[in-house]
Amino acid sequence: MQLMLYKIKHQRICNIYISHLHGDHYFGLAGLLSTMHLQGRQAPLHLFGPPGLSEILSLQFKYSGTNLNFKLVFHELDTSGYKKIFEDKGITVHTIPMTHRVPCCGFLFREKQKPRPLIKNKLPAFLRPPQLVRLKWGEDILDENGTLLVRNADVTLEPKRSRSYAYCADSRYKPELLPYLQHVDLLYHEATFTDDLRERAAYTFHSTARQAAELAASAAVRHLLIGHFSVRYKDLSPLLHEAQEVFERTDLATEGSIFSVRED
Amino acid sequence: MQLMLYKIKHQRICNIYISHLHGDHYFGLAGLLSTMHLQGRQAPLHLFGPPGLSEILSLQFKYSGTNLNFKLVFHELDTSGYKKIFEDKGITVHTIPMTHRVPCCGFLFREKQKPRPLIKNKLPAFLRPPQLVRLKWGEDILDENGTLLVRNADVTLEPKRSRSYAYCADSRYKPELLPYLQHVDLLYHEATFTDDLRERAAYTFHSTARQAAELAASAAVRHLLIGHFSVRYKDLSPLLHEAQEVFERTDLATEGSIFSVRED
Repeated sequence: MQLMLYKIKHQRICNIYISHLHGDHYFGLAGLLSTMHLQGRQAPLHLFGPPGLSEILSLQFKYSGTNLNFKLVFHELDTSGYKKIFEDKGITVHTIPMTHRVPCCGFLFREKQKPRPLIKNKLPAFLRPPQLVRLKWGEDILDENGTLLVRNADVTLEPKRSRSYAYCADSRYKPELLPYLQHVDLLYHEATFTDDLRERAAYTFHSTARQAAELAASAAVRHLLIGHFSVRYKDLSPLLHEAQEVFERTDLATEGSIFSVRED
Repeated sequence: MQLMLYKIKHQRICNIYISHLHGDHYFGLAGLLSTMHLQGRQAPLHLFGPPGLSEILSLQFKYSGTNLNFKLVFHELDTSGYKKIFEDKGITVHTIPMTHRVPCCGFLFREKQKPRPLIKNKLPAFLRPPQLVRLKWGEDILDENGTLLVRNADVTLEPKRSRSYAYCADSRYKPELLPYLQHVDLLYHEATFTDDLRERAAYTFHSTARQAAELAASAAVRHLLIGHFSVRYKDLSPLLHEAQEVFERTDLATEGSIFSVRED
C-alpha cells in the first residue's frame, strides 16, 4: 500500500532485505509478493532474511494454493556476523550483526570502486583497448621491459566517489558496530526512545536517539537518519533535537521522506 | 489500519471468522493480533478459520518470539458443511459451505428467538417470576390440573423479529446454498465479475453480480450486498445495475460503508 501511495513501481525491485522477523518488519511481505504474482511479474526476486522467513512464506503459499509465476530465491542469512551476501557489477551488500530480542542484522550497501575517467585528449594514440581498461582501474602502462610509457595520473581523473548506505534496525546500542560504519555516507539507525528512557531501551533491545547520534559521530558518517520511534512520541522533535545535539546532520526517517545517499 | 481509519475499537472484537486462506482475506490478521498484544489486550479472542490458520500464525509468533498476553483460542473449521460453530445467549453462527479454489466457508449469523414482551397492565397479580419467564417464551399458564389460567396471547406481544446475516465469500455460483439463505435479512455475496464474464467467473471459482442477485431473489432475502470486485472495474455501477435488474434491494459493499442487518 505504501509503495502504491508513493508511486514506487514494484517491478523495479529485484532484491528484498529483511532484518528480522518482528511483524512491523515483514508482515506486509506476503501481500507484496502476492500482488507481484497477480500483476504478472516474471523476473526473479531475491529475498534475503533470517531463518524462518522462507518457512513462513512457503506455508502461506501452500495454504493459498499459490504457485508464484516468478522465481522467488531465498537467501537465508546468518545474522550474527559481517558477511557479503550479494554482489553485482556495481555494489556489494554485507550483513551487520545487530543485537535484538530475535536474530537480527542490518545491511551495508556499498558501491564498488568506480573507474577513473580517461582524459581523451591526453591519451597517446598507440594505446590499445586492454591498456585503456588498465588505465581506468588505476594502473600505469609499462613496456615489456618495465619502462614507464604512460603515467596513470597524467591521463585519468579521480573516479567518482563510491557511495555507501548502512541500515541498522533494530538493535540495542552497540558500539561494536563502529568498524562497519566508518565514513558511510548515509547511516539509518533506529532510535526508539529518547535518552531519558535509556534503561528501557536496553531492556527492550532498542536504542535512544542520543545513542544513534553517538554512533554516527564516532563513525564519522556524513548523514544520519533516525527512525522506528515509539508510538509514545506524538511529536518527534525531542528525538531529532536530542540526536542533533550530538550529531548535527541528523534527519527523521518519516514515512514518505526521500533522502539521497550522498548529495554531492 | 482500516479499523483505525473507521474508528472501530478492536477491544470490542471477541470473535474473528476467516472464510479461507487467500491473502486478501487474512494477511492483515497477524498484524491485528500483534497490535492487540502490544496494546495490552487481556480478554480472550476466538479465532474461527480453516485448517492451516493456526499453523501459520503459530509459526509467525514463534519466530517473532511473541507470547501473546491474551488467550487466543483457535477453532479449526470443517468448511465442507453447514455446522454450528458458535452459540451464546443471543446468537448462533453456522458455517455455509462455499466452492472455491481452496477450502472455504461462509458464515450465517442468526439471532435466537427473542422473548415476548409482557403487557404489564394485563398481567394477573398472582403470577410468580417463573411463570412470567414461561410467558416470555410463549407458554400459556395452566394450573396443576391443566386448566388454562392465563392465555399467552392475552398478556404478551409479538417478540422482536430475530435478525440474520449471511456472509458468502468467495465462491463459484452455487444454488445449493439456497436452503441456508432463505429469508435472511442481509446477504453479503461476492460478485467478482459482471455476467459477460460468467465463464471466467466459473473458471476462477468466483461469481457474477447477476448470479449473486439470482441467489438473493430465489432465497427471498431482504437486502443484498455485493463485493469483492475485480480490479478491472474502476466504475462499479455496471455491477450494481446488473444485480439490481434481478434484485432491486442491492447495494455495493464498498470500503467504509455501513449497513444495518435490518433497518426496521
